[in-house]
Amino acid sequence: MSVIDISLLEQIRSLLEKQEPPAALLELTGDLQPYDLSNLLTNLDTAEQFLLLTALPPERSAETLGHFEPVEQYRFLDHLEQGVTAAILNQMSSDTVVELFSALHPLQTEQLIALLHEPFRRQIRDQMSYPENSAGSLATVGYIAARRWWTADQTLAHLRKVGSTTEFYSYIYILDHLGELVGVLSLRQLILADPATRLEEIMLQKLITVPADLDQEQAAQMVAQYDLTALPVISREGKMVGVLTVDDIIDVIEEEATEDIHLLGGSEPVETPYFKTSLGTFFRKRIVWLLVLFVAEAFTGNILRHYEVLLTQVVALSFFIPLLVDTAGNAGTQTATLVIRAMSVGEIRGGDFLKVVWREMKVGLTLALPMAAVTFLRAMMLGSPTNLGLTVAATILVIIAVSSTLGAIMPIIGKRLGLDPAVFSSPLITTVADAVGLLIYFQFARLLMGL
Amino acid sequence: MSVIDISLLEQIRSLLEKQEPPAALLELTGDLQPYDLSNLLTNLDTAEQFLLLTALPPERSAETLGHFEPVEQYRFLDHLEQGVTAAILNQMSSDTVVELFSALHPLQTEQLIALLHEPFRRQIRDQMSYPENSAGSLATVGYIAARRWWTADQTLAHLRKVGSTTEFYSYIYILDHLGELVGVLSLRQLILADPATRLEEIMLQKLITVPADLDQEQAAQMVAQYDLTALPVISREGKMVGVLTVDDIIDVIEEEATEDIHLLGGSEPVETPYFKTSLGTFFRKRIVWLLVLFVAEAFTGNILRHYEVLLTQVVALSFFIPLLVDTAGNAGTQTATLVIRAMSVGEIRGGDFLKVVWREMKVGLTLALPMAAVTFLRAMMLGSPTNLGLTVAATILVIIAVSSTLGAIMPIIGKRLGLDPAVFSSPLITTVADAVGLLIYFQFARLLMGL
Repeated sequence: MSVIDISLLEQIRSLLEKQEPPAALLELTGDLQPYDLSNLLTNLDTAEQFLLLTALPPERSAETLGHFEPVEQYRFLDHLEQGVTAAILNQMSSDTVVELFSALHPLQTEQLIALLHEPFRRQIRDQMSYPENSAGSLATVGYIAARRWWTADQTLAHLRKVGSTTEFYSYIYILDHLGELVGVLSLRQLILADPATRLEEIMLQKLITVPADLDQEQAAQMVAQYDLTALPVISREGKMVGVLTVDDIIDVIEEEATEDIHLLGGSEPVETPYFKTSLGTFFRKRIVWLLVLFVAEAFTGNILRHYEVLLTQVVALSFFIPLLVDTAGNAGTQTATLVIRAMSVGEIRGGDFLKVVWREMKVGLTLALPMAAVTFLRAMMLGSPTNLGLTVAATILVIIAVSSTLGAIMPIIGKRLGLDPAVFSSPLITTVADAVGLLIYFQFARLLMGL
Repeated sequence: MSVIDISLLEQIRSLLEKQEPPAALLELTGDLQPYDLSNLLTNLDTAEQFLLLTALPPERSAETLGHFEPVEQYRFLDHLEQGVTAAILNQMSSDTVVELFSALHPLQTEQLIALLHEPFRRQIRDQMSYPENSAGSLATVGYIAARRWWTADQTLAHLRKVGSTTEFYSYIYILDHLGELVGVLSLRQLILADPATRLEEIMLQKLITVPADLDQEQAAQMVAQYDLTALPVISREGKMVGVLTVDDIIDVIEEEATEDIHLLGGSEPVETPYFKTSLGTFFRKRIVWLLVLFVAEAFTGNILRHYEVLLTQVVALSFFIPLLVDTAGNAGTQTATLVIRAMSVGEIRGGDFLKVVWREMKVGLTLALPMAAVTFLRAMMLGSPTNLGLTVAATILVIIAVSSTLGAIMPIIGKRLGLDPAVFSSPLITTVADAVGLLIYFQFARLLMGL
């Protein structure tokens, strides 16, 4: 599937070495996709990388760099000749530049901003005023704007004039003299229209727009739900900021899913790709939660010491401790995971909370019954006395129902408190289920075993 | 953000009730997006739903139904008049029809297939021959095909002729007489081109294509990596099957992330939205893994019974059991989650496995040291004798390193065995870590406490 092969790499290497005129290089790389060029660049050594980026037309180098992380983009841009850096930077898409600048030290950003031409520089400064990870900072400013009284033919002529430098092309946005969006037209509709038709006669006026300060996760859900290639982003003052395109949305959806998955697995989210993340970063992201969970879990020691007499009398009680606490943790984890994912993709909303808790309680109870029966059988198999078997089974019955319900309540309360529901990770739910499970266990032991 | 309001709903209700001529209804709904229409439909009662779907132009009804699950699509199509059903069905996009038919009973599918016109019926049958969740079954067949010798002007004229019925429009695909893809051209390039240019002079010939039998997850990664709006799908015989569009890809990426998250949370993946899933389905998806984990976890009972004498001698040993096994489980879960997610998004590939295990072992060891120190302190705080404190700390040291390594090895071996790595859920890793942790604990107890 990949169009990169070793022979191509070798050909490019030898061209770069011999300092051949760029024409041969363009011929060789002209048909490659930017993503393939980025893979190729990765396989060259440092000197060759700079030669290639200098030899390619700036717009090609810009697209290629778009596939790298900000840190690497900066490494390239900082080492190229200033003229080349400026040419490439001015060809990069606005959302890529904003992401790069947000990741750099302010002094580095200032150096690079100085290389931008107006009005691109002003657009970038405007976009950087939106919070990171908002729709405004993700938007692409390179879209086609038109006026309502233009005819289809006039608009096509305008496209041919500005077209080669505009990045986003599937829709034409009709703005009034204040820069407010009044209509939208797809390129398809434009082509199908009679050449003399005015845009206002055919444009769509009921618009789906994204507020610029909306969080990227919710903006991504909007694009995904409407099945559109792009949505216009509008500032609080009603002005068109740019377009949120579907390729940016895909990255957001993957990032947000990764964030949820890491949190659910009990570590802080790691934002960089696996092999580009240092071991030190992994250590920091993991040790925090390990310690938090350790402190929470340490209370189980107090609970057990509190029941030391019971444990000394019936040492067999301890045989079931890992089984009980883990089964409770598993049931709680299942609920929390299902509920948290449904919240992330917008299937569960604010008003649904009571309904969700009630549903999960019912499912929890239904799961608890067969599990209690299995637990009783297991206790008998281990040769335990009947009252111990009943104690263990009764504990499973109650604790599965309780932890399933807790698995729904905890993320919901977390969301109300403004936390990411995904912090209610399986390790955290397991920890809570452990403490609750042990308390229930020893109460049943007292009750049913006469201790 | 939503353009649906109660007054609109009431207006539509009263129009439907009075059986007004459809013109008024079209006027009222003309500007709505299909997604908004689908929300509106959900808020009507059954009789009104059928009236609205009948009154709307078939292509609007088809787009609206595209936002429903197959079960609901069938409920609508089965109850509408046959002529209306046929008209709507023939306007639905091919991937939606394929998904619907794959979800139905074969007899229901046959009834609906009979309503399709040729050549759509043949295309649908062709597409259904690809495995479910493959690129071929997801592809849209409604794309624009052209010939290499057509001029730009001719092609635009062709677009105007076929355009209104074609679904996908951003690229023009140039096929030879055997139906093999020889080039591609964006609509943008077509508009910018001189009217007399032949397509073969401007088309891109080095093509990124997706094999029709490729799994949807890998196909989605390709589209995401290349940042393209669509990729052509090619059959094993080299023929063009259709195009994989970015809106289908978004759904795939969300679905695959949901599947991973559910598995990682220790339940079978639930494919339907939360509130559209019956409690019975949740029960079935969850009970399987609860039982599997219960059986695996039950061995801890045997391990503990094996060390009954030790536990009777030093009942304080049992105080640390939940803390030890859970901390081990947490470390293992962290590693497994980070590794599994990196595998899912293609950051870790087949050849990287040894490198990954080695990295995770190093991180595990680094985490183990501070955690062991904290554990020793905790044991002292509980008033344990020093040798018990050392036993617990030594166990934490070894078990965090071991379970971190296991958290990397298990999903990797699973992948080699052809399993979804995400089945190595946090509950499963926790269970394995429990058994290993207890064995290490009692060995250290014997060694350090002279038991």
